[in-house]
Amino acid sequence: MNRRLYDLAGAEPKRRFSPYCWRSRLALAHKSLPVETVPWRFTEKAEIAASGQGLVPVLVDGDKWIADSWIIANYLEDTYTDGPSLFGGPAARSLSRYYSAFADSLVAAIFPFVALDILHHVADEDRDYFRSSREKRVGKTLEAFVADRESKLAAFRRSLAPLRTTLKSQPFLGGEESLYADYAVFGPFQWARCISPFELLEKDDPVRLWRDRLLDHFDGLARNSPAYDV
Amino acid sequence: MNRRLYDLAGAEPKRRFSPYCWRSRLALAHKSLPVETVPWRFTEKAEIAASGQGLVPVLVDGDKWIADSWIIANYLEDTYTDGPSLFGGPAARSLSRYYSAFADSLVAAIFPFVALDILHHVADEDRDYFRSSREKRVGKTLEAFVADRESKLAAFRRSLAPLRTTLKSQPFLGGEESLYADYAVFGPFQWARCISPFELLEKDDPVRLWRDRLLDHFDGLARNSPAYDV
Repeated sequence: MNRRLYDLAGAEPKRRFSPYCWRSRLALAHKSLPVETVPWRFTEKAEIAASGQGLVPVLVDGDKWIADSWIIANYLEDTYTDGPSLFGGPAARSLSRYYSAFADSLVAAIFPFVALDILHHVADEDRDYFRSSREKRVGKTLEAFVADRESKLAAFRRSLAPLRTTLKSQPFLGGEESLYADYAVFGPFQWARCISPFELLEKDDPVRLWRDRLLDHFDGLARNSPAYDV
Repeated sequence: MNRRLYDLAGAEPKRRFSPYCWRSRLALAHKSLPVETVPWRFTEKAEIAASGQGLVPVLVDGDKWIADSWIIANYLEDTYTDGPSLFGGPAARSLSRYYSAFADSLVAAIFPFVALDILHHVADEDRDYFRSSREKRVGKTLEAFVADRESKLAAFRRSLAPLRTTLKSQPFLGGEESLYADYAVFGPFQWARCISPFELLEKDDPVRLWRDRLLDHFDGLARNSPAYDV
């Protein structure tokens, strides 16, 4: 295939768990663009050097190398104009920028719950890199970092109030149909369930029900990926 | 005038400080719809009883009474279709819903900094109502509630990171031009500066620079309202 996406994988090649890569995978699916996903590990910087940086997602489309989930989404929207719009129009594209930034902050907000579980799933060759880079960032061992996660859960769930309010009044952030804003915010939740059995969301939370609707999108693309049933 | 907006006022009738009313005022201005704003106090429930509830903003447009800032925005968009779109299209309207809910959460996030300052500005007849209803909500005196506000400031500013990231890359949440999403999120910041000298935002914060751009919109509608220069 002439289109491939470098996609963060764990020790099991099929366990894909980057919140940012999930955005791009759903964006490609939204545009009905087939793609070969290439399992990639944190330490395989050389594989994606042609993108000019060292993080995934990296999309290779023909002879173009594109990095960064937001830039990839804009590239897809501008290049593949026949398919359904990923953003929902020019104003909606601008309004989607904040969702992308908000979703980044959700990754940081979810990390204290799943940090140690990630370590259990990363590939052997990534384990030292992951532990040392993340422990340096949080200033303690990953074990200590997650030890009191139960006590942080209520505040995390409360912080989702604006999302909850919105998703009580419409099925998707994009309205009746999902848009890139949905995929951006979905990424962190999918990331969590791909690598952690920790139940972040209560079963009847409108945020979880929305997440579950997105799991079923595109023939269950996200649901059929190795993950925990939480 | 056949169009009026009940607008929360302080002891000074011109000091208007509801974050929700500011959304509606900017929405009306965006649509170039002249409106008479009626100063209203918390305890004047009878004045707006025809709206079926007891909170402002309440818009009276001809013989229609419309309450709730989100419903008012949708009413304006659907009724006044000649003017510029308030949302930026159907998908953008759906995407704006979350901004409205996020802005509500900003009101709650800012309240610990300005709660006591509000008390100093409410009308005499509102003072007991305001103190008792808010102290019941926060579980302590307003004086105790704001006593440690300096220590909360860094975390509040950090919580604006997604907004900051977005506003570094585009002048408005709506893109090159402001949209309802901007007015919704602007409301809480305008509320704060209307009743409190507390400096919530640093001078060079992209969030503050965005707020200042909105202060100048519509011939300085928000800037020319009584407020503190913070």
